[in-house]
Parts: sequence; structure tokens; C-alpha cells
Amino acid sequence: MTWKIRNNELGEQQLLVNESLFFNGNGYLGVRGNFEEGYNEDLKSIRGTYINAFHDIIDITYGEKLHAFPETQQKLLNVIDAQSIELRLGDDQEPFSLFTGEVLSYERTLHMDKGYSERIVHWRSPKGKEVKLTIRRLVSFVHPELFTIDYKITPVNFHGKLTIISTVNGDVSNFVDPNDPRVASGHAKRLKTCFIEQNGEFSAIVNEAQRSRLRVACVTNYLLPKDIKREDEVTERAIKTILTTNLIEEINVTKVNILTDTLRHEDVITSAYNIHEQIANQNFETMLAEQKHYLDDFWKYADIEINGDEALQQGIRFNLYHLLQSVGKDRYSNIAAKGLSGEGYEGHYFWDTEIYIFPVFLMTNPSLAKNLLLYRYSILDGARARAKEMGHSKGALFPWRTISGTECSAYYPAGTAQYHISADIAYSYIQYYLATKDEKFLQQFGAEVLFETARLWIDVGHYYNGQFRIDAVTGPDEYTCIVNNNYYTNVMAKYNLHWAGKVFELLQEQAPDVFAALSEKLQLSESEHTEWINASSLMYLPYNSELDLNPQDDTFLQKAVWDFEQTKEDQYPLLLHYHPLTLYRYQVCKQADTVLAHFLLEDEQSIETIRNSYHYYEKITTHDSSLSSCVFSIMAAKLNEQEKAYDYFTETARLDIDNTHGNTKDGLHMANMGGTWLAIVYGFAGVRLKEAGLFLAPSLPTAWSGYCFSMYYQGSGLKISIDAELVEIELIEGSEVTVHLYDNEVTVTTEPIKVQLRR
Amino acid sequence: MTWKIRNNELGEQQLLVNESLFFNGNGYLGVRGNFEEGYNEDLKSIRGTYINAFHDIIDITYGEKLHAFPETQQKLLNVIDAQSIELRLGDDQEPFSLFTGEVLSYERTLHMDKGYSERIVHWRSPKGKEVKLTIRRLVSFVHPELFTIDYKITPVNFHGKLTIISTVNGDVSNFVDPNDPRVASGHAKRLKTCFIEQNGEFSAIVNEAQRSRLRVACVTNYLLPKDIKREDEVTERAIKTILTTNLIEEINVTKVNILTDTLRHEDVITSAYNIHEQIANQNFETMLAEQKHYLDDFWKYADIEINGDEALQQGIRFNLYHLLQSVGKDRYSNIAAKGLSGEGYEGHYFWDTEIYIFPVFLMTNPSLAKNLLLYRYSILDGARARAKEMGHSKGALFPWRTISGTECSAYYPAGTAQYHISADIAYSYIQYYLATKDEKFLQQFGAEVLFETARLWIDVGHYYNGQFRIDAVTGPDEYTCIVNNNYYTNVMAKYNLHWAGKVFELLQEQAPDVFAALSEKLQLSESEHTEWINASSLMYLPYNSELDLNPQDDTFLQKAVWDFEQTKEDQYPLLLHYHPLTLYRYQVCKQADTVLAHFLLEDEQSIETIRNSYHYYEKITTHDSSLSSCVFSIMAAKLNEQEKAYDYFTETARLDIDNTHGNTKDGLHMANMGGTWLAIVYGFAGVRLKEAGLFLAPSLPTAWSGYCFSMYYQGSGLKISIDAELVEIELIEGSEVTVHLYDNEVTVTTEPIKVQLRR
Repeated sequence: MTWKIRNNELGEQQLLVNESLFFNGNGYLGVRGNFEEGYNEDLKSIRGTYINAFHDIIDITYGEKLHAFPETQQKLLNVIDAQSIELRLGDDQEPFSLFTGEVLSYERTLHMDKGYSERIVHWRSPKGKEVKLTIRRLVSFVHPELFTIDYKITPVNFHGKLTIISTVNGDVSNFVDPNDPRVASGHAKRLKTCFIEQNGEFSAIVNEAQRSRLRVACVTNYLLPKDIKREDEVTERAIKTILTTNLIEEINVTKVNILTDTLRHEDVITSAYNIHEQIANQNFETMLAEQKHYLDDFWKYADIEINGDEALQQGIRFNLYHLLQSVGKDRYSNIAAKGLSGEGYEGHYFWDTEIYIFPVFLMTNPSLAKNLLLYRYSILDGARARAKEMGHSKGALFPWRTISGTECSAYYPAGTAQYHISADIAYSYIQYYLATKDEKFLQQFGAEVLFETARLWIDVGHYYNGQFRIDAVTGPDEYTCIVNNNYYTNVMAKYNLHWAGKVFELLQEQAPDVFAALSEKLQLSESEHTEWINASSLMYLPYNSELDLNPQDDTFLQKAVWDFEQTKEDQYPLLLHYHPLTLYRYQVCKQADTVLAHFLLEDEQSIETIRNSYHYYEKITTHDSSLSSCVFSIMAAKLNEQEKAYDYFTETARLDIDNTHGNTKDGLHMANMGGTWLAIVYGFAGVRLKEAGLFLAPSLPTAWSGYCFSMYYQGSGLKISIDAELVEIELIEGSEVTVHLYDNEVTVTTEPIKVQLRR
Repeated sequence: MTWKIRNNELGEQQLLVNESLFFNGNGYLGVRGNFEEGYNEDLKSIRGTYINAFHDIIDITYGEKLHAFPETQQKLLNVIDAQSIELRLGDDQEPFSLFTGEVLSYERTLHMDKGYSERIVHWRSPKGKEVKLTIRRLVSFVHPELFTIDYKITPVNFHGKLTIISTVNGDVSNFVDPNDPRVASGHAKRLKTCFIEQNGEFSAIVNEAQRSRLRVACVTNYLLPKDIKREDEVTERAIKTILTTNLIEEINVTKVNILTDTLRHEDVITSAYNIHEQIANQNFETMLAEQKHYLDDFWKYADIEINGDEALQQGIRFNLYHLLQSVGKDRYSNIAAKGLSGEGYEGHYFWDTEIYIFPVFLMTNPSLAKNLLLYRYSILDGARARAKEMGHSKGALFPWRTISGTECSAYYPAGTAQYHISADIAYSYIQYYLATKDEKFLQQFGAEVLFETARLWIDVGHYYNGQFRIDAVTGPDEYTCIVNNNYYTNVMAKYNLHWAGKVFELLQEQAPDVFAALSEKLQLSESEHTEWINASSLMYLPYNSELDLNPQDDTFLQKAVWDFEQTKEDQYPLLLHYHPLTLYRYQVCKQADTVLAHFLLEDEQSIETIRNSYHYYEKITTHDSSLSSCVFSIMAAKLNEQEKAYDYFTETARLDIDNTHGNTKDGLHMANMGGTWLAIVYGFAGVRLKEAGLFLAPSLPTAWSGYCFSMYYQGSGLKISIDAELVEIELIEGSEVTVHLYDNEVTVTTEPIKVQLRR
């Protein structure tokens, strides 16, 4: 069961959640798990198909618009609906529905090892016709544009006329909740069908977005049994394919949809036909085989095996699988906060990528990690422009949320003000370099990002009393906005500046030509190098000696502590019940902030300071953000508070499967999913990537008898197994590497190293 | 000339400005100075008639709406246009216009002593017909609903058919500038004509607002010469009255409009007819006489005479006159930021009232001042509700901007976060008490306001290191938002709390019944009294001992100083060229903040601290707000920097007449107008109202040979004259009073006290 997700419920709320849980995607395309045949009229459903980064541009309206407030934002669009397949039984055309007749058996499964979802139904119609159905869906990891549905009908007591109505519908809207003012109804309908044709066996529809003018095509054909009759009805915005046959024995219909867009394809229609041609000799079974093959490769490094807890095992696999389904694999896309599973956060990319998700791919699939960096590089010009617009003389300020590179945040105190995103991105470039030693990539892309972000910090900050300080920014904690010297921001900027200086020297020495070209391009000067080094070494990091901890910012500790006793359970998350100003007035954190900084840069403080900080912030953190618990788990593990680490970990592992935040229907929590992996690998296994190398310090949660995982490090593959007694590290690919295990340097070879597990 | 404003220009920009400068109003009604006959088609005009507080409710849209962000706001409406009178000469109906034919002479005047505006025109039509026109307008101080136009036509070389077309038009919109995104076009058209009739000689139109459902009526009739022919054309939303006659000798037509609304009148039509009946025996001359009488009374105390500078003399009278024209005189209204002269700031009331305008009326017309306080009392329930909504357990939080009492600010960092408005309102109640010793008023209204605002501070603030502190608020300076321990806020809250405690005791002693009733109503407890006293006496006031000054907030002095050298002139006002976050990052002030606190509560700091603060903030204040220069003038005068005081003063005195801020077309700057008066009376004359009494410390700007002004103090009227040698104080009404003149207590009698002017 740990490779499968099952849910057979048919209540509205769970069905909505299942649309997210059972979504099929591949990082380019995402199709929510809606029923092909639709629902009862009174059941709400968010029917959606998304292409990563495929968006329209919409106006942001403000009651009071101030200078450099973004005027527009991007919004991920629900593209073309190719999910629909209706079934009619008999001459009286009884329609199949799980909400009429009798469901004799029903099983819905997501196969995470094989990469498809499935519904198996045994159904009796109101008038007694019985059939069995097996409906399988696949969004291909091998052919990104491919979404296919395999529909098998097996007669039980009914033999007679069978009608299958399959629709491709260009008349789509984004989801609107009339009770949610955040979803302006004016923004729902953004696509217009601009081309539609039935061309032989192909149904083709092209939709165009109102303002971005991006186009998306869906070209569909069918793999049909021979004796089936086909008619196609083309209307203004939809094509209905009506298949009729005599149901005598099992029948199989495969709907093959190719979705292309103008972000990636010049001519969407031609491209779609070409792709159809490429896969013309395939059937659903061969597609499944390709899919399995891809996933075998993926799981080889991504899988974490846990002995002793099936529910967690399932949760971890679920999270990893959905990360893979959601992560952009081309230079146009990244990973949205909800992946491709729903419309929450409008398909925007946040710092979630760099801090919570990137490390997962960095260690399990470095090429996907690299792609995430390339995406950021592709929006660097936009970040430079944004810095200018925000009044900075130089540098790059990355947008807090975006698809195509411009700032989409309409509430800057918890958006644009989170300048740390630029340091987070720099951090991920550094981590990539440490993990891969890919110097060419550093020269070609990383250096420029590091230099431009370093320039930002120089312009944002200033010296005061001999220290470099950064005022008026917001750290990760969104319950405390626009502060001076946020510890997280300052320490991340320090690291950013340090590495900019370091890479400056590195390039000068090792790649003078590259350095010269980049110097010319960026108008770099030696004095900037000095500025970076100085600012980094003189960076002010708030520290309270009395409590021996790092205050979140200059005045954080002087504020009143939130009255948690008087806060009722239904008043969480606080942001839905209190004005931001009220929240800002108190010591109360939405999420890990200083604690996160201590995870990412643990050598900046003594372990005692880190411990004191942890305990201080733990008391005042609500974890109203899904980005929080995993960090507390990791740091509890580091501080050897194993029980606590485990408790926080369990909160992350099944957040979506169990819908513990209550909003999984709007999409899965990608960052939290990455956080689960982090909590094991960085938390329990104590992995860290530093200039000095790879560090491991495994521990074992008492609930488990053991666990193992794999990772890439500098081109080699390692497998790490932990049981109650031993830690084993084995080279499974590539050349020998040296790592730090607990306090020792060890060389990893194909002969497993075995070391006593530390308690 | 100092009692008149003249301007004869006909260029678009000046005409727009003149619409504000020459507006006629009375605090209830305001009519912009638009030409009766209209303009050339290509000339922009903001044609407007406003009734104080007459508004519609409109949605505020946010890109991201957070908890307790106001969902709607009020908007002052352009009501019904009764300004239009067109003239046609001859059988060929040549229309009169200042933009065709030949303007042989033209003079436009506002008579500030008599209370009307006037255009005198000698005009020759394109075909050579010559007439003289005298058009006078009056909005009555005696009959608030009355707006009348007296139109006199004198033939010069033309005698023949004369057609006068007078329109009352219900088809009105608010002003929209398509280039200004702040004015959403969807909000322009809010009134619908719901009733229209020609009833004998009366034209009646009623308009209704879309959402507030408020109604406004205009009932118009005419005083006509006998031999004129009248026809009335009623269309769906307008009534045209066409008057024809033979122009042989001077003809006089008076258009008498009565505008009523459902805020003040149950049945707007009946009320309007009744008012017409009340003034039935009046003509324009008798109305003028009434007006003059009212103004004589007003000017007796309001006028400031200056010897030695005519332009300033004119500027001061202009300001006072327009304040009178704009200040609400009933319990439904207050004084909008732009008065009734334009649509800027949507007719909202701000703290401008209490700090910049209220003192003018307090000392020149206490009953108008009292009305301003009653308005605030009328929205106290709303302020209590807002405090709750903002998460406070008790107290009243007054809205930053409002008409009917709910918060209308869509950008809370420089809106709702300015909690000081509650202390400002409390301050004005205290000032009223000090100026009038009106104990009944204090008991009936003041006490409740003081208690509820004091409760707010207790809930907002907290103790830290034995001091009472207030976090996460914004002071007056809108370039520094959401800070801890803003000096202004803290010191004003301290005063608020102190007086709440004091009045608590006062009531207990002097009016136990009132106290008991209020205690019951507010569920007051003795412990609250203690809380107020304690918080007041332990209030933390930021002080920097090294510089011996008061920092604007906890971290203000640690920030980088704005780079004024690199800021070009066209980058001011900064808020139009920099993102707020960028401004918040620096030491740069939009306006007086700590300096204002030192004016309002000068005894809280030593004169040296006040001086150091002044010089510190002066260097970093841009005066991008029109609320700033007057305060710097006052404080320069206090610090005996007379030249500086005078320079700042001259910036305030003619700000609108000379359109120095470039936006007078949107309405006059009411707070600045009050500031001019303050700069003389509080600045040069050194007046202060304190618990210990009335203080005067006059000085004389070197540019003047003398000045004199009058004021009420505790029911008595004082006249203060200053010349190069002497200060004279004389009792002009009521009983003898004791005041502090320089360092001495003196008793003011009808026999003028003469004291040497201090240099």
C-alpha cells in the first residue's frame, strides 16, 4: 500500500480534496482528478487542467496605489478540458454516474511507482444494467504534452447499445468562489477559443489568453476498437466525439490528448500533430511501460524507505511523487506553491522553491535542480529592473511571487518586502555548486546571480556604528513585517556577500576570460569586491547576550508576547482573524524565521545560542504556515530533541493526504512536501552541505526500526542506511567521495562503511 | 484688495485652479466656481456641487485583502448642477462665451468681507453685439441650503431678442481623470434621478445614491423682471427654463436654488419648498445684506490684521474665509481635507481637523469648534466597533479617514496605523475644555471620549522594563510607517491618559450622578483609573542623550539618512517617485512629527531638547505634506529663529492662491489654511492653552510693522495688538480674564495692557 494512494469516498469535501490528491502531472502539464463523467449538479468541483507557467496577465487593483506597486500580475490558467468521457448504456441511454444507480464496488488508486491513476467501478444502473469500468489516466513524464485516458468497459449483465461521448472543451474558466473576495469573478474567464477543427481523426482546439496572448492547443485522437462507430460534432468551442457500439465483450477506448502552448512551441497545432505522429505506434500499455521506466530511475534516488511506519512511508512517497509531478522541467517554468494540482496562489513561484524544494532535487535529481536555477537566471533581467524600480542604484531584486518574472505581490509588507528571497536564490546557487562542483555552471550563471544579489545588499544596507545593517525588510515570518535587521535576512545576505566575494576571486584566478567578459557586462569593479567582503564581515547579526539568543529583529524582544491563553482554537490561523497591524504588534511568529536561519547557516552561532533561540521561538510560533513544522523538526533533531523532531515531522508527512490544513482542495502544499524529505535527510540524518564538504549525523526516531535513502554528491551516488545499531554508507554510482560522518571524515566506496549509530 | 481675490485669466490650468479659489460655500453646501455658460469643448473643467457628508458607499478593492481591511468607503458626491445659465443674443441666438467674440473687459472677484463672488464682463459677440454682464453668486451662511446666482445683463450696442437658458441638471458624475488610476471610473456615476417635476414656478429634481440610498433635492425658482417670457422643459434628468425677452435696458434674473438632503431632512422636497417659502420675500440684495451681517460677526474675531504685507494679508483672509466656507456646522459633518471646494481625498475627514483647523475655530468661533467635537462624538460608537474589529478588547479607535464614521483608508500603514488620531481627538476635547471651561460639555461628551481613547492606549500598549510602550503604529510622518514608540504617538497618548485620569477624578468629585451614569454605561472601574494614571506616568518617550533630542521612534536614528544631494528637484514629492518601503528605510520625513509633538506638548521636554530635535528633523524633512511648514514656522518662532519662522510662514500663507503645490484644482488645502492662522497666533504671538491657563509670548516678524488679532478665552473676547514696540491686550467682550504674557500673569480688562515687545 505504501506505493499507492487509495480513497473511495464520494462526499463533496473529500471529492474536492481527491481532485488534488489524485491529480496527474509531469511538471509541464497537470490535470486535476475530476471524474470523466462529471458529478451531480449540486456537487462542487474544481475542474482543471494547467500548463506550468501558462498564464494571463490581470490588473491588480488597489484602494490606494503607491509608487512601484505592481500594476498587473500573472495568473495560471485552466486551459482546455480534455477529461470528459460520458457513458450511456442501452437504447434508453442511461448515463453512467457514481451518484445514481448502485455502486457495487469502487476503488480509486494512485500508483506512485507506475505513474498513473485508476478508478475501478462495478456499477448497476437505475434500471439494472451492470457494467465494470476501469479508467486509467496518465500524464507522461516522457512526452510532456501527453495526457491520456484509457477507458475499459466490461459488460456484466448488460449487453447492448453503448454510447461513449468524449468531449474536448475550450469553454473553460478559472475557479471562482463567490464567497471568497480574493477571487475576482472578472478574472475567471480569460481564454477564448480562436481555432477549432475536426481534421480526420483529430479534434483540435486552440485557446488564446486575453492579454498575454499566449495560446494553448489540445489535439486529441482515440485508439478505438475496430467495430466502433465514430461521429464528431464540432461546435463553437468544443468538439464532441460520439462513439457507438454494441457492448458484447470488454471494450477499450484510449483518448490521447496532446497539449501544446506558445511558450514552448511556435506553432501549437503543428507541434501537436508532430507529437501525435511520434507516439503513433504506442498504446496505453506501452505508454505505461515508458512511465514505469522513468519512475524507476526517479525512485532510485528519491525514495526513502522507512521501516516501522506504513502511513508515514506512504506519506513520504506521496510527497515525493507529487513534487516530481509538479516541478517545471524547462526554462519557462518552476514549481508553483501548489504545483500543478490546483489554483491556489495562482500558480505563482515563491522562495518555497529554493529553500524547501530545491534541496530535494539537488540531491536526488540534480538536473531538475539545475533547471530550477536556470529559471531564476532567466528572470534575472526582470529582477534587475525591479531593483531599479524600487529605487536601488544597482543589483537584482527577485520578485516575491511571479510566473514570468515580474513582481505579482499585491501586499508588499509580506511580499516585496521579503528581500530575503534574493539571498535564498543566491543560497541555492551556492548549494548547487557545493553539491556538484559544477564550475562551468557557476561561471556561466551562478556568478552573475551572486554578484547582482550582492549588489542589492550593498544598496539596501548601510553602516551604523561600524556594522553593516539592513533596515525595513520582512523576514520569513509574515506575522512581523517591515523591521530593521531581521536576523534571517542579515545572515543570509552575509552569506550571499561572502560568496559573491569568493566567486569574484575564483573567477579572477581560474577563468580570467569569463571574469573579464562578466566584468564588462556588469561593469564590475574591484571596489565592489571589497565592499562585498567588508559588508559580509561587518554584517550585524542581532544577538541578545542576556538570553543568549538571536532576536528576530532589532526590536522583536521588546514587544509584548501574544496572549496565547486567550486565543481560541478557531482563531487560528491568526491571519484570518486579526488585522496584520495587530499581529505585528506582538511577539508571535507564523513560521520558522530565526530558527530557519539557524538551520541554513548553523555555523554562524554557537549551539547554545541556537538551542536557546529554538526554545524561545518555539513558544511563540503558531505554525500557521505550512513551511514551519519541517524546520522545527530539523532543528529539534539537530538539538537532539528526538521526540519533538518526530512530532513535528509527523505534522508534515501527511498534511495533504489527511487534509490537516483544510485547504488541500485548492492544491497540494509543495513546500511542505519538500519539507518532509528535508526533515528526514537534513533532520534525522543530519545532512548538511558546506564549503568543507558533505556532513552527515544520522539519528533514528524511536518509532522506526530503520530507514534508508540515496543521494547524489559531486556526481557520485550514495546510499545511506540507518538501523537501530548502525549507519551504513555505500557508493552506488560514480567515484569514491569523502564525507563527514559525525566527527570523522570517511571515504565512501562500494564497500559499505558501517559506523555505530549515535544516540 | 486684501478683502478681495481677483483673477481674470482664461487659460485652462488657471481656470481649473479658479474653480477651487472662487468656490462658494457655507460648510453645508459648496459650489465650485464654474462658469454658468460653460467652457470651450476642449477645456477641462471639474464642475461640482457638494453637500458636506453627502456620500455614496463604494467598494474598496485590494489585490490581497487581509482581515479587517475596510471593505467599503464613503465618497463625497457631486450632487445636482444648478450652476448653468446660458445667454443667447439676437434672433440668430449668438451664445455668450468668454472663448468666442471679444472680451472687452473682464473681472472676476471673490468678496471675502461680503461673502459672494462676481464676474463683470464687457463682451462683444462674433457678430458685434455688445453687452455687459454682472454675475454674482452667493451660498448663504444664514440659509445653509441656499445657492443663488444673480445675473444682470446690460445692453451696450445691442438691443433685441435675449434668450436665457437656465438648467438644473440631475445627470451628474464625479470627476474622473482617465490618467489617474486612483479614480476608478466605475465610481464616477453614483446618483440617479428618481424624481423630477415642474411645479408652477418651481423646478424640482431629486437624485438618489446607488448604495447609501441618500437623496438630494434641488428646488429652483427665479426672481424675474415682469416682462419676461418663461418656458420650462422637463426631460428625464434635467429641467431647462427658457426665458425670453427684448433686451432694451438692464435686466436682472436671480436663480434661487435650495438644496436639501436626507441626512438632514426627512422629506427633501417638502423641506426645500418650505425653505423657499421662508425666503420668499427676499431678493439678492437682502440676501447679500444678511450675508454681510454674518461675516461681520465672523471677521470680528477671525480677522488678523497685518501691517506691512498686503499679499500676506490677503492670503490670511483668503484662508480664513475658505475655512469658514468649508467647516461643517451640523452634527452630520466635519471639515474635509479639501473642504467643499473639490473632490480630492473624496470628501474625507482626517486628523487635519483636530490639529490644524479646530484651534482656529476654538479661539475665533467656539460654537463651530464645539460642533466639530460633536461630530466626533457622533461617530464614537463606530470607533468602538473599529477597535473591536482591530482586535482590541476595549476602547475607541477613530478612523483615519471617514465621512460617516467607518474607516475608509485603503492603505493601512499610512492610514489605520496612525492610531494617534484618537489622541488628537482627545487633545481637542481637552483644548476645548481649557479654552471654554465648559464643564457640562466635558461631562456630557468629553469624558466619554477621553475614557474610551484612554482604554485604547491601555490595550495597544504594554509594559517593558517598567515603561509603558506602544508598538506597531505610525506617527504623523508618512515616510516612516509601523514603528515602535513613535514619540508623537506616545506623548499624545500620555496626555490622553493623564487627562482621562484627571477627568475621572473631576467627575467623581463634581458630578457624581453623571459619573455614576457614565460608569454604568461604560462599565468603568476604579482599576482602569489607576491603569491610566500609571501608563501615563510611566509612558516611554524616546530620548537620545548623546544628541539630546527625541528620536522619532525606537530605531529612527539608526537608519541611513536619505541622500538629499542625489535627489533631483523633480523627484519631490518623494512618495510619487519611491516605493514606500524605500522611504521607510531612511531618515526622511514627509512632515513635522516629533516637531509637531513639541509644539502641542512643549512642556514634556526641555527647550534645549526641543531645539536640538528641531534642527535635527529640519534637515531631513521634505515638507511633501502641506501640514508641515506651518508647524516648522511655529516652532522656529518659539525657538526665536524669527527669519526661519517667517520663511516657513510665507510658504503656507499663499499656498492655494499661488497654487504652489500644483494641485489646487482638486480643492483647497484646508489644514494648511488653518496652519497659517496657527503660525501667526501660536507662532509669532506664542499663544498656548495649558492647564495653567492662556499663555502669550508675542514676537514681530521683521517684515511687518505690526499685527493684531482677536480671540475668545473662557467666554471673554480679547484683542491682541503687536507693533514694533508694544504688545497690547484689551478686553473686547465679557469679563476680565487672567492670562500669562511672557513671564507674567496679567489681568485683561477693557483698559489695554501695554507691555514692551520682546525681541
